[in-house]
Parts: sequence; C-alpha cells; structure tokens
Amino acid sequence: MERVVRHFQDELEALQARLLEMGGLAEERVRAAVQGIVTRDMLVIDRVMRGDEPINALHIEIDDRCFRMLALHQPMATDLRAIVAAVKINTDLERVGDLAVNIAEAARRYVSHPPVKQLIDIPEMGEIAQGMLRDALDAYVRRDTGLAQQVLDEDDRLDGLKTHVFRELLNIMLHDGATVEPSIDLILVSRHLERIGDHATNIAEDVIFMVSALDVRHHPPTPVED
Amino acid sequence: MERVVRHFQDELEALQARLLEMGGLAEERVRAAVQGIVTRDMLVIDRVMRGDEPINALHIEIDDRCFRMLALHQPMATDLRAIVAAVKINTDLERVGDLAVNIAEAARRYVSHPPVKQLIDIPEMGEIAQGMLRDALDAYVRRDTGLAQQVLDEDDRLDGLKTHVFRELLNIMLHDGATVEPSIDLILVSRHLERIGDHATNIAEDVIFMVSALDVRHHPPTPVED
Repeated sequence: MERVVRHFQDELEALQARLLEMGGLAEERVRAAVQGIVTRDMLVIDRVMRGDEPINALHIEIDDRCFRMLALHQPMATDLRAIVAAVKINTDLERVGDLAVNIAEAARRYVSHPPVKQLIDIPEMGEIAQGMLRDALDAYVRRDTGLAQQVLDEDDRLDGLKTHVFRELLNIMLHDGATVEPSIDLILVSRHLERIGDHATNIAEDVIFMVSALDVRHHPPTPVED
Repeated sequence: MERVVRHFQDELEALQARLLEMGGLAEERVRAAVQGIVTRDMLVIDRVMRGDEPINALHIEIDDRCFRMLALHQPMATDLRAIVAAVKINTDLERVGDLAVNIAEAARRYVSHPPVKQLIDIPEMGEIAQGMLRDALDAYVRRDTGLAQQVLDEDDRLDGLKTHVFRELLNIMLHDGATVEPSIDLILVSRHLERIGDHATNIAEDVIFMVSALDVRHHPPTPVED
C-alpha cells in the first residue's frame, strides 16, 4: 500500500513538472508574440507562428499521463481533484499556445502598415497575462489559494486595460481613417491577451476548487456540499 | 457487481441528459443573441445578458456529478474517458454561454448606431455554430464518430465565413468612417461565433478520442499507444 501511494506521488510530481514545462513554453510564446509587435520583427513573429509543435506534443503527453493515473491509481478526494484539474489546466495551456499564434497572425498584418502612434497598454497587458499564467501554475504546484486569488484580482486589471485600449483605438480610428486596419489588429491582440488572462483565471479557479473544494466560479466563495 | 455496473450506466445516462439540457440552453442563448442583432430588439439582447444563471448552476451540478462518479465507481477504459470527456464538454458549454453574453454586449453597442448596410454572413455563422453544438452533443450521446467528424468539417466553413466577414467590414469601414463603430462590433460578433464553433470542435474531438482512443487534436488520425 505504502509503495503504491508513493508511486502515485512520484507520478503526480512528474505530471506537475510537465505542466510547468508546458506553462513555461506557453508564457514564452506570449512574450515573443508581444515582442514581435513592439519591435516589428517579422523573424520573431514567424517563429511564433510556426512553433506550436512542442506545446501540442506536451498536450497529448500530459493528457495520457492523467488518464493513466486515473485508471491505474483510482485516486480519491484531493488527489482525484488534482488530476482532473491537471486535465483542465492542460487544455487551458494548449489554448494559450493557440492564442499566441493568433497574436502573431494579427502582428504580421499590423507590421505591414505604418505603426499606430502608440501601442497604448498592449505591452503592459502582455506582461500582466504572462505573470498571471506563471502565478496560476505556481499556485497549482504549491496548492496556494492565496496566490490563486491574486490571479483572479489581476484579471480585473487586465479587463480594465482591454476596455481602455478599445476606447483609445476607436478614437484614433474615428479621427484618422488610415489607422483603421492596424488599429483593428491591436484591438484583436488586446482581446487575445484578455483571453489568455481568462485561461489563467480558469487555472486559478481550479486550484481553489482543488485545495478547498470551494467553487468560486459563479458566485462568492461558499462551501460546496459533499 | 452487475448492480454496480447498472448503477453506473444509470448515472451516465443522467449525466448525458444534463449535458444535453445544458447544450440546449447554450444553443438557445446563441440563437437569441444573434436574433437580437438581426431584429435590433433590446429586450431580447437584455434577456441574454442577464440570463446565464441556469447554465452556471448546471455547470456546477455536472462537475459535481462527474467527480462523484469518478470517486464512487472508479471507471476504466471507455467509461473513464466518457466521464473525463463530460468534464471537458461541461467547461466548453459554460464558455459558450459566456460567449452568448459577449455577443449580446456587442449587440447592445451595435444597435445604438445606424445599421451597417448588411449583416453579411453573421446570421449564417450563427446557424452553423448552433448546428455544430447540437451535432457535437448528439455525437457524444450516440458515440457517433462520423457525426463528430462532420462537426470538424463544418468548423472550416465557419472559419471561412469569419475571414469573409472581416474583409467585407474592413472595406466598408475604409470607405465610410461613420461605419467604424458598428462594423467593429460585427467583427467581434463574428469572432465570438467562431469561438463557439471552436468549442463545438473541442467536443467533437473529445468524442472521437473517447470512442476510438484516437487523438485527432494535433495531427491526422493515428492510433495512440496504450
């Protein structure tokens, strides 16, 4: 019995290491995509557009690991919630990788026009989204609900910036028709970054549910009946 | 043993009925949100913006059911995959509900301006997205990989229409600055509809994985090693 339990813990640690690796890749791709916009560097943008193979391979491997652990160990309670959370987190990280590609696609169009006067809050949004991803995964590994709660708070900031970016760019477009195309691409980029924040938020909510069996997803924290 | 197995099948059927109910609600909300744009009816739009409580309640209930079934029955093989697929499908349907709200938000801004000459392919995109949701859930309940594959094919059509809508609206904006604001909202609506199609695609891929243990998510179908 002792041996089986330890074996499960070893596998759980290996699983967490894989998730962190995948999170690092996703975060790096978001960073590169935003950098491509700031520096207008087509090489960086192209690299993001072509480079999602490692994340996709990890996505499949992590899913396999989760199914194997569920089938072989039939975990209960917190361990069960940790594996199901891993399945969900894996899905969220894969989508973040896709969103980095979407940002790069908008970036490629964006740099084909003269730049819009300023990038407004786009670089800051990129940094917030990356930080949220990092914190959400740290919260998962350390089972730290306080850190998870911080991620939820950061998401409000990100949403506020998205709204600000939208208003600013609308103004710019209304005053100068020549800025319509690049402005729309920046609006799309800000929405992609907001969605990345949403995925980090999903992860943080899964962490809170896993650790405390509280469901914070649709109402203020109240205990879930068992 | 026989009794436990039957009990699991009963619970699986109850779970599927709940997922279908949730899918029906999600589909209805998408339909109403698009209808609000076509008819410019603020009552319909407001109803979509305020009405996500039933979906959120079902989301929590279905998640609870899945965890209980995993913990009590410790299912294996196809049954295990069916439950994990249900967890994922549940997440996808909840996001579809959120996207209906996003469409309604854009619709509320859209109807505050004079209409853009035509809605282009938006109504058709709405119908395709609803059909994809319906087919993906039918494919889950009937374990029908052929129908799931049709959903994947439909997604290409939806992506094509989204690109067409984007180009058309860009042209309209470039020729008439007064159309910038409502045009952007239509572009956002077309992206929300495309994302609804993506969620239906996720469900269809989960069905194919569940039934045949093929992973179609990142490459052409090849057997997954066990």
